[in-house]
Amino acid sequence: MCSAQRGERLALSVEELGAFMATHFPVAVPWVGYVEALEPGRVVMRLPFSDEHLRPGGTISGPSLMTLVDTAVYFLILAHRGPVGLAVTSSLHIDFLRKPRPADVVATATFLKDGRRLVVGRVEMVQDGDPRPVAHATATYAMPDDAGEGP
Amino acid sequence: MCSAQRGERLALSVEELGAFMATHFPVAVPWVGYVEALEPGRVVMRLPFSDEHLRPGGTISGPSLMTLVDTAVYFLILAHRGPVGLAVTSSLHIDFLRKPRPADVVATATFLKDGRRLVVGRVEMVQDGDPRPVAHATATYAMPDDAGEGP
Amino acid sequence: MCSAQRGERLALSVEELGAFMATHFPVAVPWVGYVEALEPGRVVMRLPFSDEHLRPGGTISGPSLMTLVDTAVYFLILAHRGPVGLAVTSSLHIDFLRKPRPADVVATATFLKDGRRLVVGRVEMVQDGDPRPVAHATATYAMPDDAGEGP
Amino acid sequence: MCSAQRGERLALSVEELGAFMATHFPVAVPWVGYVEALEPGRVVMRLPFSDEHLRPGGTISGPSLMTLVDTAVYFLILAHRGPVGLAVTSSLHIDFLRKPRPADVVATATFLKDGRRLVVGRVEMVQDGDPRPVAHATATYAMPDDAGEGP
Repeated sequence: MCSAQRGERLALSVEELGAFMATHFPVAVPWVGYVEALEPGRVVMRLPFSDEHLRPGGTISGPSLMTLVDTAVYFLILAHRGPVGLAVTSSLHIDFLRKPRPADVVATATFLKDGRRLVVGRVEMVQDGDPRPVAHATATYAMPDDAGEGP
Repeated sequence: MCSAQRGERLALSVEELGAFMATHFPVAVPWVGYVEALEPGRVVMRLPFSDEHLRPGGTISGPSLMTLVDTAVYFLILAHRGPVGLAVTSSLHIDFLRKPRPADVVATATFLKDGRRLVVGRVEMVQDGDPRPVAHATATYAMPDDAGEGP
Repeated sequence: MCSAQRGERLALSVEELGAFMATHFPVAVPWVGYVEALEPGRVVMRLPFSDEHLRPGGTISGPSLMTLVDTAVYFLILAHRGPVGLAVTSSLHIDFLRKPRPADVVATATFLKDGRRLVVGRVEMVQDGDPRPVAHATATYAMPDDAGEGP
Repeated sequence: MCSAQRGERLALSVEELGAFMATHFPVAVPWVGYVEALEPGRVVMRLPFSDEHLRPGGTISGPSLMTLVDTAVYFLILAHRGPVGLAVTSSLHIDFLRKPRPADVVATATFLKDGRRLVVGRVEMVQDGDPRPVAHATATYAMPDDAGEGP
């Protein structure tokens, strides 16, 4: 696959993603259920508002948002590369911008870089009815040596 | 409290920290049990190796390490400032440095800045028997307006 | 000014920005000349390709891109808040995504958060003829206590 | 060189570093003069207080500190790996902790990770007479494919 085509075609459907996770990462299977849209170059996930993600003040906790970021970028990579090997997060930066309301958080993950050795994803998190993001993050994944035939 | 004295005296014991969390943040109470040492300027936490924190390959997951960072810095602030109000994470940056072995992770949180409006904590994560860190992070907390009498 | 109006009206023109910089920050005046567009919510700057910004391999250096980020967000804040006091950078995160070609870099700075005490700007850097970013950054500025009448 | 020996032996002296920079990166040669100590696992640089690094308020500018970080980690890598190829910064995160006084800034760069494909350096910046850091940063460099024989 040449560089220009990176991120332009899906290698896995949501169902295939779920099957991969069930085999290799059972504890994270519920997160596959949060995938709202999977399109070339983009994954949208909806984190449902529920007690387990709360922190004092009734707001969604920082760790829940960071798990959402890490998972959304992992799904973005798997969906486009296929189950070619074990990508690992090498760094993650998140800015918490405003206190989330007690409501779902919708995260959209896209590629900033879809390279042979490093993939950088960007995740913007909003809530229904407000265009201002509640959080914004970038996450870098290091790809295994067998992960692609790219540039 | 003058600036020079910041971070030099504890306002809460581990028991008082546990009581505060039980009242205000019940879901996070188990994390108080991970506190191994609480000293002026420093919190040490031990994340026990267990199935719930695993990801594919038997290693401790990134989200578990990020929760550890966020919690350690939150405890560092509470322990030194006391329960004065609601500190909120404004940003977090983590570098994942090497794949953790299937063993406990020990996190040491210290102050980089202990300011009136912003607190920046640094967290270094290692495993027993290896001095090389598995991860390193900094987290910034915004303090509420009533959080201190500092500079 | 209410929160909803933040970032929606300019307080300074490019000329007024230049006058402020000439008085308070003479060494950075040349950067005002790089402003290509200043609109509500957005600053666009064009860093001209020139020898002084080069590193080995003929590519634009990382420090030049970081200066571009810091300056673009500073101008974004000044242009919207006016010369109300001294904003200071509290943190900056940058992902270098691909080696820039020997050509200008165009940076677009927008608000992620335009708060009373913290402003977070996002900067995307591209080159003419290629939609893929060469770098992406977020920068947080702490505002002085007298910086606004906001929430 | 095996992994355990990484960062434990210098490949270049300050003089050899200067010669390499003069050939490959002339514009950055003055920074070699700021190297105060070069030891296995550690580079110490002193940024002299001077007008060119100032910003409003007489303090050292953020871009000067970011250039210091990027340069210190680059020198750390070159000094330990030798001139094996072109390392490039893939990301940089900096926390500005307190306003520097009008005085030199001393930066100490060490390895957080000294891997085959990624090197992560940590840089702590202080000023004479005050143990509290003025800034703290981590920078990740991607190594070229021919950069080492490590793990």
